Amino acid sequence: MSEKLIGACIFGQSGGLTAVINASAYGAIRAALDAPEITKVYGAAHGIVGVLNDQLYIMDEEDPKELELLLHTPSSELGSCRYKMADPEKDDTDYRRILEIFKKYNVRYFFYNGGNDSMDTCNKISRYMESVGYECRVMGVPKTIDNDLYGTDHCPGFASAAKYIATSCMEINKDSRVYDNGMITIVEIMGRHAGWLAASAGLATFFGSGPDLIYLPEIDFDMDRFFSDVEKIYKEKGKVFVAVSEGIHYADGSFVSEAKTSATDGFGHAQLGGLASLLANLVKAKTGAKVRGIELSLLQRCGAHLASQTDINEAAAAGKTAVEEAVRGMTGCMTAFKRVMENGRYRCEMELLPLSSVANYEKKVPLSWINSEGNGVTQELIDYVLPLIQGEPVLPLEHSLPRYARLKKVLAK
Amino acid sequence: MSEKLIGACIFGQSGGLTAVINASAYGAIRAALDAPEITKVYGAAHGIVGVLNDQLYIMDEEDPKELELLLHTPSSELGSCRYKMADPEKDDTDYRRILEIFKKYNVRYFFYNGGNDSMDTCNKISRYMESVGYECRVMGVPKTIDNDLYGTDHCPGFASAAKYIATSCMEINKDSRVYDNGMITIVEIMGRHAGWLAASAGLATFFGSGPDLIYLPEIDFDMDRFFSDVEKIYKEKGKVFVAVSEGIHYADGSFVSEAKTSATDGFGHAQLGGLASLLANLVKAKTGAKVRGIELSLLQRCGAHLASQTDINEAAAAGKTAVEEAVRGMTGCMTAFKRVMENGRYRCEMELLPLSSVANYEKKVPLSWINSEGNGVTQELIDYVLPLIQGEPVLPLEHSLPRYARLKKVLAK
Repeated sequence: MSEKLIGACIFGQSGGLTAVINASAYGAIRAALDAPEITKVYGAAHGIVGVLNDQLYIMDEEDPKELELLLHTPSSELGSCRYKMADPEKDDTDYRRILEIFKKYNVRYFFYNGGNDSMDTCNKISRYMESVGYECRVMGVPKTIDNDLYGTDHCPGFASAAKYIATSCMEINKDSRVYDNGMITIVEIMGRHAGWLAASAGLATFFGSGPDLIYLPEIDFDMDRFFSDVEKIYKEKGKVFVAVSEGIHYADGSFVSEAKTSATDGFGHAQLGGLASLLANLVKAKTGAKVRGIELSLLQRCGAHLASQTDINEAAAAGKTAVEEAVRGMTGCMTAFKRVMENGRYRCEMELLPLSSVANYEKKVPLSWINSEGNGVTQELIDYVLPLIQGEPVLPLEHSLPRYARLKKVLAK
Repeated sequence: MSEKLIGACIFGQSGGLTAVINASAYGAIRAALDAPEITKVYGAAHGIVGVLNDQLYIMDEEDPKELELLLHTPSSELGSCRYKMADPEKDDTDYRRILEIFKKYNVRYFFYNGGNDSMDTCNKISRYMESVGYECRVMGVPKTIDNDLYGTDHCPGFASAAKYIATSCMEINKDSRVYDNGMITIVEIMGRHAGWLAASAGLATFFGSGPDLIYLPEIDFDMDRFFSDVEKIYKEKGKVFVAVSEGIHYADGSFVSEAKTSATDGFGHAQLGGLASLLANLVKAKTGAKVRGIELSLLQRCGAHLASQTDINEAAAAGKTAVEEAVRGMTGCMTAFKRVMENGRYRCEMELLPLSSVANYEKKVPLSWINSEGNGVTQELIDYVLPLIQGEPVLPLEHSLPRYARLKKVLAK
């Protein structure tokens, strides 16, 4: 496509974690190590923060077998960050520093693996390098359990979290209906603005052992309606299982959980959590029933032992594609997934989207995939998620416990 | 051993749930269906409550393949209860009712699967039937994730919970050390009086990805000491991962989780949630660090997808042995596990213990298996737990999600 660009590359991981973000790292790092155009492969310690701090691991020094174990190692092995960069037009301090580091190591390829905010970072770096005439190909690799990235059929990391949530909900359902007395169980699932993860609890229901009620942030939450939904089923069956997205909010936009804490993360998002016990206490007071609140917490995003092999494969392919396309000449793009259904069979094709078209938009669950009562999902949602969670990885184990990658992390000088 | 006793049997499940209590049910029900002496096999709906209410499922009516799926179905498929029976010497109402039901269905074998309280129930029924001269062989099948039953090397259900906890802690550890800022993570693990489960989080540490600090109810909890332990590691590494048993208590015996002294967090909000969030708020106030509290909640006891095959096999064998020994003439006993180590290899032998010797005693973690600082476990604890968690079951799946047993549950008339 364009002329050969010879130089080093940096791969960095950013934002929230997933069970398969390291699979993308493996896909990208392996492809970079194999590419003759790429002279050295660096992994940034804690994403862009590692670039700013000149903390780069030399991936060429790693044992290939340990690198391969990244396919099954959850969380971000290189370290992540939640660092928000200023617009380069307003304050270019960070960008000048990045340029300095790029020049120091002759970095000509930059790959950044993250969600909405990270694609924004990626886009800004790409624009800046272009504006100062430094030739560097910048590519984004998507990642988010929230599945809210625009322009891609789905996001790497979502399916494994969905599988963890569906399986755990099936187990919780078995557990919560077992006594001879009444019981109301409320499970809180991640998802600040998009309800994809809580919606995936519907898979458990679809397979006969899941929540009776599911509430997503796509629909304004109404506490009275919620109480009435719960009480109706409680009267009927004596057992109620509710799944709620952490991001459910009232019609005025305020989070149901928001009174809980005023702490925020680096991007100014409110720290959520504690919603399950909040609702459990309210329902207990209202019904007098035995109520249990359960927060799936970060287990849902780091549950590599329940990963979807489809997700692992696609995550690795997303990283690999970004590197291969950059070497071919592409820049300023993010790998995206295109769903192809042939004779009812699912297949995923890699494609490229301009970073400017994906950054900072959020893809939500279509309202037509939520039932008319606003408390459950439709067959369309199930049909969308089900192909993504297929396949069980053969996990590397040591004494029946996970054997994760053990990287040397040799710092570049 | 003694003469043949012909008649029906009842199998019941009681108390808290485990990932493998249904494996014991399968072992017992299958053996009972195969025993010529046993004319009919009933499953009690919700344990002894189902006997009192004359709600018995006819297990002979079930599809053998569905029954076999009980090996991988978590929770209690027949339903459980937490019904405490009076001493028959003080109030024999329930016992007379049980006798009536036993006579109605010609029940000559009674198998009860549960923990301490259930073995006590079993023992009382056995004594009563003997006192009124009704021939019925009564056998207990142990079960408890808490691993606190006296006289058995370990309890069915413990190992699968331990494996779930160790694996989840490895994943949480990966997740909680990933950012470039400080982070303190506190995980709350089940175990009211015995710390076996929290101690099992030490497996994760042993395999390089686990808690820095573990607190068990076997050692009186000291809040100042705890703060100092946490702060020391936080200063050193910037990341701290703490596992606490829900049953940790002060020297006066009061549970830390019930302490009223710190009823509000730093913002003056009322405390919601359990021990993990209580400690998280206290540590946050003390250190100013970012702190996350995680409750493994009932996921740890119903996580069949992470069950130990060793545990499944032993749980099934415990049920089978109880039935076979009863048919041979034994009564008033509980199946127990004897650990045999041969050339460093673990083997488990079934043995029988008199119910009177196990009921209502609690086996705790030996103090010599806790480190001298009282905040971790020793190699002995690891050596004890590790053989029990070995082996991955081949889980029956449907669309990559668990396929549980679907019983018909035909009620006896």
